[in-house]
Amino acid sequence: MRGLRAYDPGHDLVALRQRFAPDGLVELGSNENPCGPSPRALAAAGDALAGLHRYPDPLGGDLKRALSAKHGVDTSQLVLGNGSHELLMQLAQVFAGPGVDVVMSRFGFAVYAIAAQAVGATLRVAPALPTDARMPRGHDLDAIAAAITPATRLVYLANPNNPTGTWFAHDAFAAFIARVPGDTIVVVDEAYAEIADAPDFGSALPLLGAHRNLVVTRTFSKAYALAGLRVGYAVAHPDVAGLLERVRESFNVNTVALAAAEAALADEDWLRDTLVANTAQRTALAAALRERGWSVTPSQTNFLLVEFGEHTAWIEQALLDRGVVLRPMAGYGLPECSRISIGTAEENRRLLAGLDDLASESEFSAMDEDG
Amino acid sequence: MRGLRAYDPGHDLVALRQRFAPDGLVELGSNENPCGPSPRALAAAGDALAGLHRYPDPLGGDLKRALSAKHGVDTSQLVLGNGSHELLMQLAQVFAGPGVDVVMSRFGFAVYAIAAQAVGATLRVAPALPTDARMPRGHDLDAIAAAITPATRLVYLANPNNPTGTWFAHDAFAAFIARVPGDTIVVVDEAYAEIADAPDFGSALPLLGAHRNLVVTRTFSKAYALAGLRVGYAVAHPDVAGLLERVRESFNVNTVALAAAEAALADEDWLRDTLVANTAQRTALAAALRERGWSVTPSQTNFLLVEFGEHTAWIEQALLDRGVVLRPMAGYGLPECSRISIGTAEENRRLLAGLDDLASESEFSAMDEDG
Repeated sequence: MRGLRAYDPGHDLVALRQRFAPDGLVELGSNENPCGPSPRALAAAGDALAGLHRYPDPLGGDLKRALSAKHGVDTSQLVLGNGSHELLMQLAQVFAGPGVDVVMSRFGFAVYAIAAQAVGATLRVAPALPTDARMPRGHDLDAIAAAITPATRLVYLANPNNPTGTWFAHDAFAAFIARVPGDTIVVVDEAYAEIADAPDFGSALPLLGAHRNLVVTRTFSKAYALAGLRVGYAVAHPDVAGLLERVRESFNVNTVALAAAEAALADEDWLRDTLVANTAQRTALAAALRERGWSVTPSQTNFLLVEFGEHTAWIEQALLDRGVVLRPMAGYGLPECSRISIGTAEENRRLLAGLDDLASESEFSAMDEDG
Repeated sequence: MRGLRAYDPGHDLVALRQRFAPDGLVELGSNENPCGPSPRALAAAGDALAGLHRYPDPLGGDLKRALSAKHGVDTSQLVLGNGSHELLMQLAQVFAGPGVDVVMSRFGFAVYAIAAQAVGATLRVAPALPTDARMPRGHDLDAIAAAITPATRLVYLANPNNPTGTWFAHDAFAAFIARVPGDTIVVVDEAYAEIADAPDFGSALPLLGAHRNLVVTRTFSKAYALAGLRVGYAVAHPDVAGLLERVRESFNVNTVALAAAEAALADEDWLRDTLVANTAQRTALAAALRERGWSVTPSQTNFLLVEFGEHTAWIEQALLDRGVVLRPMAGYGLPECSRISIGTAEENRRLLAGLDDLASESEFSAMDEDG
């Protein structure tokens, strides 16, 4: 336990918000939806305040029924979490432990390693795809399959992946899971799946019927813009869901979260509009960064992984001094990259203006570096 | 893991609320504060909705500073939980495990046993005080001390205790902890401590300076009436708090909870008033039940443990049919008792009217049973 390191949530945003008030901080470090949640979700959250003195529904029945209808799964296949973070931890608690291998990809989401460590399991990290691949630093499903040993009981994948923004094709995943032994749980963390629309991308949800060892996790923190409320869910075979239910704390999802998530799920027009806005801003921001000479990883998410190379730490600090927060990637072994969440048009403009400012001030530019 | 049973949260209140709408269900099963939270807490919760798309402050800095000021402890001694339930589970995760003994009292809060089981520890249950003691079924600190073995690393006490409502004296606890080996963590769950005002009651907080192995947990779910938001905290030596921080999920306490709890803590007038109301209702309800011949355990909480004897299950069901929810105690090995939360004056009146109804309908009464 003494060797365990907690998840690093990045900068102290509370302090930064005070420092940059009232002009406002440009928060591009946490992959939140800058447009805020559906008005229907906000209204439901407001209504829920009348019942704060009561415990939440420990069954999460209304939200589970809404998720069941949306995904065409039985409510017995659903487990709700205090964010999907909690579910990722519980999966290790149930399926891993000392003497058990847990497999993940290099540059996979940091919580997987923490979950494995927390239960004393052995972490096996498969190499990622090379930087010159179509999906630089993305999951290499062949390498991940090769890392699975007879002691492996749990594999964590993310599709699309954080912090790379990369994804793997549905067909490739179908072939992958067919190769995994049935007593090894395969978790596909689909925190960003609502955002993904690439032709070869596909959720793992339709494969649940064929694979009892598949667990898909989702969250309301990203596309649905409810990060502050903490609500995520897992979809799995009822037997697997039942095991997760045994370690779940009865009141793990709060009353406001249950109500807001249910309402957000019903507001499909809002979701479509916010995703259109995100994709448009992502396309524009990626193009603008590439125009300035920076290498940008293909992304199916609401963020971009950008290579600033040897200038990275300096750029991050200089932008921070101007009130623009990026997420440093040194903790992921990527000190040459920054993760930049897609902001509103105005926020992205401030980011680019900041970068242009630095280039003119310092007479450095990406072109200098490359040339 | 397959042997693990989740905490039983009682009846399906969502279904019952629908069944008894619009007259309203009398919810006396979950030890909530029926008056609702401080208006200042509600206002802070409403204000917090504007930031739901952002992650919560992972440090919980503002709430920790408020708690630090209130209790005269350093912020490094505080750990926030998704309810104190989460902290009780994490204490076992950090300090117990296979080959380790966990000690609790018979009729102690159910979560302690679940926490021990979840990590594969050996549970040792000390006998409770006899039913004819001053504190019937309460914690017997001598018996608990005697149950501690060289393998014991964790002891869970509750003061006051749920579901008995009993308490132990501050002096007795000071003598107890002086006998416990320093490498055994003693948790005092003070979920109901704000409510307690007996002359011999005292929080364990002042003993923190003298005992590095003492952990006190508190919650905003009871006196502060914020059960729906899920926020509790632990106070401990900084080294112990630091270990708990390592297993804490960064965003375990949601944005609305952080804001509402901080505001609730500041509203000391509201807290005083709500506690006065609770005590007055508890005194009146206990007297009314005793007048009707039922045995009521002394309580320093917002509930009463009442002995309905062989009639218990029948009374609970008959009251439920009239829309009055009590908490059955069979899961605690007390099928002869019901736990009844203190309601508003009107709710308590409906409870007593229901009991009188049953007595006249069935020609049964407590007096018949006793005589």
